[in-house]
Amino acid sequence: MKDIQINQETEMANAIRALAMDAVQKANSGHPGMPMGMADVATVLFNRFMSIDPAAPKWPDRDRFVLSAGHGSMLVYAIHHLLGYADMDMDQLRNFRQLGSRTAGHPEYGHADGIEVTTGPLGQGIATAVGMALAEKMKNARYGDDSVDHFTYVIAGDGCLMEGISHEAIDLAGHLGLGKLVVMWDDNAITIDGDTNLSTSTDQQARFAAAGWHVSACDGHDMNAIAEAIEAARLDPRPSLIACRTIIGFGAPNKQGSHDVHGAPLGDAEIAAARKQLNWAYEPFEIPASIYDSWHQIAARGAHKRAEWEQRLSVEFRATEPCDTSALPGAIEAYKRKLSQDKPNVATRKASQMALEVVNATLPFTVGGSADLTGSNLTKSSKMQSVTPQDFSGDYIHYGIREHGMAAAMNGIALHGGLKPYGGTFMAFADYCRPAIRLSALMGVPVTYVMTHDSIGLGEDGPTHQPVEHLASLRAIPNLLVMRPADAVETAEAWEIAMMSKDKPVMIVASRQNLPLQRTQHEAENLTARGAYLLRDPAKRDVTLIATGSEVEIAIAAADLLAADGIKAAVVSAPCFELFEAQDKAYRDTILGTAPRVGCEAAIRQGWDLFLDREDGFVGMRGFGASAPAPALYNHFNITAEAIASQAKNLI
Amino acid sequence: MKDIQINQETEMANAIRALAMDAVQKANSGHPGMPMGMADVATVLFNRFMSIDPAAPKWPDRDRFVLSAGHGSMLVYAIHHLLGYADMDMDQLRNFRQLGSRTAGHPEYGHADGIEVTTGPLGQGIATAVGMALAEKMKNARYGDDSVDHFTYVIAGDGCLMEGISHEAIDLAGHLGLGKLVVMWDDNAITIDGDTNLSTSTDQQARFAAAGWHVSACDGHDMNAIAEAIEAARLDPRPSLIACRTIIGFGAPNKQGSHDVHGAPLGDAEIAAARKQLNWAYEPFEIPASIYDSWHQIAARGAHKRAEWEQRLSVEFRATEPCDTSALPGAIEAYKRKLSQDKPNVATRKASQMALEVVNATLPFTVGGSADLTGSNLTKSSKMQSVTPQDFSGDYIHYGIREHGMAAAMNGIALHGGLKPYGGTFMAFADYCRPAIRLSALMGVPVTYVMTHDSIGLGEDGPTHQPVEHLASLRAIPNLLVMRPADAVETAEAWEIAMMSKDKPVMIVASRQNLPLQRTQHEAENLTARGAYLLRDPAKRDVTLIATGSEVEIAIAAADLLAADGIKAAVVSAPCFELFEAQDKAYRDTILGTAPRVGCEAAIRQGWDLFLDREDGFVGMRGFGASAPAPALYNHFNITAEAIASQAKNLI
Repeated sequence: MKDIQINQETEMANAIRALAMDAVQKANSGHPGMPMGMADVATVLFNRFMSIDPAAPKWPDRDRFVLSAGHGSMLVYAIHHLLGYADMDMDQLRNFRQLGSRTAGHPEYGHADGIEVTTGPLGQGIATAVGMALAEKMKNARYGDDSVDHFTYVIAGDGCLMEGISHEAIDLAGHLGLGKLVVMWDDNAITIDGDTNLSTSTDQQARFAAAGWHVSACDGHDMNAIAEAIEAARLDPRPSLIACRTIIGFGAPNKQGSHDVHGAPLGDAEIAAARKQLNWAYEPFEIPASIYDSWHQIAARGAHKRAEWEQRLSVEFRATEPCDTSALPGAIEAYKRKLSQDKPNVATRKASQMALEVVNATLPFTVGGSADLTGSNLTKSSKMQSVTPQDFSGDYIHYGIREHGMAAAMNGIALHGGLKPYGGTFMAFADYCRPAIRLSALMGVPVTYVMTHDSIGLGEDGPTHQPVEHLASLRAIPNLLVMRPADAVETAEAWEIAMMSKDKPVMIVASRQNLPLQRTQHEAENLTARGAYLLRDPAKRDVTLIATGSEVEIAIAAADLLAADGIKAAVVSAPCFELFEAQDKAYRDTILGTAPRVGCEAAIRQGWDLFLDREDGFVGMRGFGASAPAPALYNHFNITAEAIASQAKNLI
Repeated sequence: MKDIQINQETEMANAIRALAMDAVQKANSGHPGMPMGMADVATVLFNRFMSIDPAAPKWPDRDRFVLSAGHGSMLVYAIHHLLGYADMDMDQLRNFRQLGSRTAGHPEYGHADGIEVTTGPLGQGIATAVGMALAEKMKNARYGDDSVDHFTYVIAGDGCLMEGISHEAIDLAGHLGLGKLVVMWDDNAITIDGDTNLSTSTDQQARFAAAGWHVSACDGHDMNAIAEAIEAARLDPRPSLIACRTIIGFGAPNKQGSHDVHGAPLGDAEIAAARKQLNWAYEPFEIPASIYDSWHQIAARGAHKRAEWEQRLSVEFRATEPCDTSALPGAIEAYKRKLSQDKPNVATRKASQMALEVVNATLPFTVGGSADLTGSNLTKSSKMQSVTPQDFSGDYIHYGIREHGMAAAMNGIALHGGLKPYGGTFMAFADYCRPAIRLSALMGVPVTYVMTHDSIGLGEDGPTHQPVEHLASLRAIPNLLVMRPADAVETAEAWEIAMMSKDKPVMIVASRQNLPLQRTQHEAENLTARGAYLLRDPAKRDVTLIATGSEVEIAIAAADLLAADGIKAAVVSAPCFELFEAQDKAYRDTILGTAPRVGCEAAIRQGWDLFLDREDGFVGMRGFGASAPAPALYNHFNITAEAIASQAKNLI
């Protein structure tokens, strides 16, 4: 291994190495190998290229930095400390990975200033960065270079590039030609199990080139070579991959270059040896003033750029920060009034498209899309224009058959700010993008998922396409609002909630089959926001029927059957379990009543204990679906008004 | 478009086209475009290369055919009918997509003979085929060419190649050099939204070449060109991609080549025009005898090959079909007896590795692996040898950082027969492979998933790595057994259940942190097979505490606290909800008792209504975790013996 030339930039990098190995050692937990290996690359990137202002972490036109290899979180924390982020003092580094500190094991969006995205689940960072770079292109097309003109830089590891989501991400980025996206691959030939040649032989540069990327390689420990590679990447009109040849744990003389250094503290002896190797004469968590000065110059340069930007900022752009949704409630209420007169009998996926005509006409910053199911998800409203590699002024994305890449890209678009993304696929394929949905919820990013074909009601495509457990599995994700509207009015209300949401992702679950309007009486209030409400409320109820989405129609029919036998049934529509759970006890008790209950949903019962006791009834699915026309399936699986009525009678 | 030369092989292909368009029309649902576009390629493959025997659909050494583009299911059904599969008479085709027919909307494993794998969720087929081709290599290395020597052929569409899982699959196949895997890509440049150039610009041949594949292209409507390409693919030592340039809906003169023909019936007029175009003079569902004769010759050739194979079949190989697990229960019982003496205090992930020493020593056909977390999942037992591109005689797979590809490959290995695969990753990343886990359950394929680091108990890595909703979301999948053992004995019992399972996948969920032995009294019976059982059973109980995995220790401590206050608490260990639900009511009532209950699991409550009524207590998680040492987190989230005891007291 070549000797390090001792110069100021290398010293800046060694400060990262020292803080990383010392913090991991103190926590007795963490990953020193990656920060030490990529310290030179990261230092050159920040020292010579990055435009950020620690005093204004949310400056909209800042360069974005995404650490896709999130386990190397100490790289970011060390850099933020050295740059002078106010919330990243040395005590935060001393408390790395401790309860309540900002220095979580993996970078957590919202925990510390300047963390652009939560990473750790591999591949998510690079795929989210594609959304950020896409948002930059779209906003640049709308507002011009004066307002939006920045780069998105990613540090990715071998794991990020092995994960399937990376294929979806680079394919989409290459197709759209996101030239201001620069991925620096930590090409250290090491994974947790050992050498990368245990499990991969892919020529990554050839792979990225096949996807339309500009590719290059450099010695990740040669400052000028790194700078030349980044400069070339910035100039090329294609997205760029730089294979940075690095030694994992660089500077730890006895452990570097091996997987032993990946995910465990180095130990006091090796840390002492590394200090010697790096000529680093300072105590743990001690940084000399001259090093701070060098890093602070980066911050000063960024502050100057931000001041210039504020001078020339376009009026149009100012108006987009933040997204103003104040006009929506009025528009939705007017639309609901019209619905109560028109009484459309449409699938809720169609009702979703109808609502989108109102939403997209009212909110100029929505960005629609679908994973190649535009005509099935009905996510494109009449005036939407597709974004193309030649023209980014549109507002609809053809994400391709890439559910996972779509979800991560939507996270990136939402995190970038000023645009409100939504995207669709078949609900069964929510499984394909679940890791990115989870990150939406964990970060509290208000993206909207449109999941159509939401039950056996989709019919002939059969069990691979029929959600059965998906409502339960998605309701299980904390901080995600799962909405299953029963008709066009609830669908409009769900869209209002989704667009007004500031800190929660929302999933709108829609039927393939037509559903009659249930909310024939206009109500100004957004009843869906209550989570569940009484659709039919007899004076004194003998039984309470609770249903969601396409099964509300069946519960109403069951109530009619029971009425014919002189049994009074209340009918509750429950479009959103999470919002009902958030209501006060008095409201919940009023809705649930004290009579026996029967729940109905063309899905498994799991999760229904919010409404039902174990002795209550439930009409739904007990296993996978089947391939047949929808009416035949509802009969076959006995999800019928008759089944609800007979369970109700047994309970009374 | 070039005229079709009318010869017998083209007629054989036109028979597929006619059956596909007629069956879709009669069902008024389905996808005619792909079967009509790929009819020539499929006909050449079967007519000139495939070795299968419809009279012996499970012949172990048959060539495997995987229709990854599962929506084109009529291609398979038509071929199986023409070949003379006994269970695929013309009535099955007339009842395409109807309730109870074998001709489901997408090919369903187990519904009809010769369906090698359930497909439809895009990319799953090609990734499962990688597992089949890997199994072929492994068994060939063990038993020789006389016993195992066949090809695995895949037809994949643009969607399959856009999905992220395809990257994981081709990367793994290229690395291992699975030369007898041949993927025929239906390169028709059409997706549902329109032309592929709406969403992708990837050079697929260059992409596959970068992953170490042999690549070629051919006119997918030129019989001899197709044959030459397949022959070259068979000869090349690398896995092969053949880009088959086809016209979607080939033969439908007014609709072919457009996405209109992808997923909707052609309509009577266009079908009539297609009959004219193809010179197909026969009625719907009418096939002339000469065409049947040609297809039956393929079956006859396969029957002959099978007879030859049975002649030369090695004794060793005969012994492997089916996997004989009869020796395992005795070995596990002896091991449990030893545990009750040794009383190990180990993490259940370590206990899993200890159990694997017994399992792998007893069952020579297990195949272990991990998604690059071997040292964390502890999935490799002491005598296991890694499979390498040079040597397939080993029994451990380094799947790489490819959870999704691993799960699909395990499905393929299990479907191939004679090997029993298991593989590990962190439980939080079960989300990454969920679509393949769902297919394991839907197909009833007995693969074993080892999911370690199963709660906030993993500590510092934080919320991205801490499962909170995963137990609920995985228990929601029908036909999947989720096991969360509390100690080394339950872990051994879980492994016994997993290895004995014939029709269900099993997931073994394991802790990172150490857990004391709870089952200190040896019991011959596999109590874990009961799903839940009484670990502590006082004469007359005041309260019942129910816990799983690492929280059983906490429930026991709570029972001790309560005992100090003179409160008698029964403690139930509930390692498998699905198996408890399957017990008879009498048993369940005995376990649950009539006293108030408190459940405890370091996860959300969803799914616990199997044990708890709404008024019962629950100690667990209400949202995402955090980054800190495990003990700090258990205190922070109040998952403690004190919390359980106080809830118990409030209920009594």
